[in-house]
Amino acid sequence: MTSEPAITAFAPATVSNVACGFDVLGFAVAKLGDRVTARRIHEPGVRIARITGDDGRLPLDAARNTAGVAASALLTARGISAGVEISLHKGLPLASGLGSSAASAVAAVVAVNALFDLQAPPDELLHCAVEGERVACGAAHADNAAPCLYGGFVLVRSTQPIDVVRLPVPKDLACAVLSPRLEVATRAARAVLGDAVPLAAAVTQWANVGALVSALYTDDYPLMGRALHDAVAEPRRAALVPGFQAVKRAAIEAGALGCSLSGSGPAMFALCRGAAEARRVAGAMVSALKGATTGECSAIVTDLPAPGARIVASV
Amino acid sequence: MTSEPAITAFAPATVSNVACGFDVLGFAVAKLGDRVTARRIHEPGVRIARITGDDGRLPLDAARNTAGVAASALLTARGISAGVEISLHKGLPLASGLGSSAASAVAAVVAVNALFDLQAPPDELLHCAVEGERVACGAAHADNAAPCLYGGFVLVRSTQPIDVVRLPVPKDLACAVLSPRLEVATRAARAVLGDAVPLAAAVTQWANVGALVSALYTDDYPLMGRALHDAVAEPRRAALVPGFQAVKRAAIEAGALGCSLSGSGPAMFALCRGAAEARRVAGAMVSALKGATTGECSAIVTDLPAPGARIVASV
Repeated sequence: MTSEPAITAFAPATVSNVACGFDVLGFAVAKLGDRVTARRIHEPGVRIARITGDDGRLPLDAARNTAGVAASALLTARGISAGVEISLHKGLPLASGLGSSAASAVAAVVAVNALFDLQAPPDELLHCAVEGERVACGAAHADNAAPCLYGGFVLVRSTQPIDVVRLPVPKDLACAVLSPRLEVATRAARAVLGDAVPLAAAVTQWANVGALVSALYTDDYPLMGRALHDAVAEPRRAALVPGFQAVKRAAIEAGALGCSLSGSGPAMFALCRGAAEARRVAGAMVSALKGATTGECSAIVTDLPAPGARIVASV
Repeated sequence: MTSEPAITAFAPATVSNVACGFDVLGFAVAKLGDRVTARRIHEPGVRIARITGDDGRLPLDAARNTAGVAASALLTARGISAGVEISLHKGLPLASGLGSSAASAVAAVVAVNALFDLQAPPDELLHCAVEGERVACGAAHADNAAPCLYGGFVLVRSTQPIDVVRLPVPKDLACAVLSPRLEVATRAARAVLGDAVPLAAAVTQWANVGALVSALYTDDYPLMGRALHDAVAEPRRAALVPGFQAVKRAAIEAGALGCSLSGSGPAMFALCRGAAEARRVAGAMVSALKGATTGECSAIVTDLPAPGARIVASV
């Protein structure tokens, strides 16, 4: 089979929730991501040939793998009976809060879309990727998969049907991302939230979402800073991430507009005005985490908007 | 005292909540509103000389009247020991959902501000008006008072401290407002909401707030239509307003982008693309209400953005 042409797609890490936008806001991060290589095979269905970068932890069974399920969903939706073999390289750590499972799913659908020249519309690709993510986290949200696919900063108004709003990004906006070497399972992080929100907290949350969206359109950095607060998830999830409060405090003191958990954590992000400030903030976050815990971590700084998933090799 | 100069301010009706934005979104409506005339008197404090248009129902005791409390708050904040006599003309029906108490409070502070040439910043006027509204509805929100004061379409990110975001209005946006001759007390309408919101409904709500704000910036009428849904208050409050479902259905069928309760009702609003459509929608809403109930109603159509409170006479 190795003589068949192969297509490789890259899909980036993403920061979801973005403080106030639990389950609805997300943006792509440059540099970090997963890669999926897809090639046709004679037997029908999806086969996962190999996975690297996961320390052997992800299932090779396509029906239990987010990339496998996403690829299958696209083939089924398009009535393709031919088979696909995919190889997945995890550039993202598992359960890190950086949209790892979404990146695998999105890379898979982008690669398969190109391999069969399906020219599926983005919303269809997103729908299939979200199906893949459902395997990983038990619920179908799109606040990682949508920015991963489209790039930039997005708002997911609805997942059924898919309704994604692409938001503008002020030109100086940059982001520091701190990734502790620690895992927080999305299912566990959802469980601490419960099923209901105090009305007052919910009102605060949607006021902040509206204000943040407005600030993105008007390049209003001070308003962005005032809006970047999470009244719903962070108060309950912060305890799952050792050192979070120290890191957040350090980021704000170093000049960040706002700092919160990336997705369900343990990764943390800080939005900043300018790349130089983001670098300073990233340094402060690393120092704070090292001062508060014994764990290791890594940090990156990304300019925004960052591009979404794309084909990176075709041989 | 009648030889003292008098200043009259007009403050408009407002639609608050705007479907998805419970307690945070609101816009001003043209034509309808309250008027307050203020003049200096020798005795200190605020005295209410007369109220018209209320069928004698509002208290003349300044400490129990929204306009009186708002005027007092401004005088106190500014250290003014001189007294003020105010006359209030209610152009807005009480407990109608059209921001009646906010209009009285805002008209009072605008008139007093001009009478003493205080040049208080708008946020200070708003703070005082919200204090006045607290007397009327027991809670200090600003989603009526803010659009009443500023005009246009606003988002109240926070009331403590005041943080109001002025939103753009697409040039064809118009609104039909139906006002049944019926009262819904704000306190009762709040009581049906309870203290908590299901998390899924809250997520839907803030997704829609974000999408609606985006749509206002991009003149995206279809997105506005998809975002104009209330997952939190309308489902519980609709039963307080006889005929609401019939009116809403008629508005949507006649082409409205969205239709919901104005504030806590019973007034209902429908946002529309263009004044001609808004007139057609208003007609359909009136017919639907008359078909569903025996009560009387009135309807108006307003172009958006509508101006905020202003001085209309100075003698």
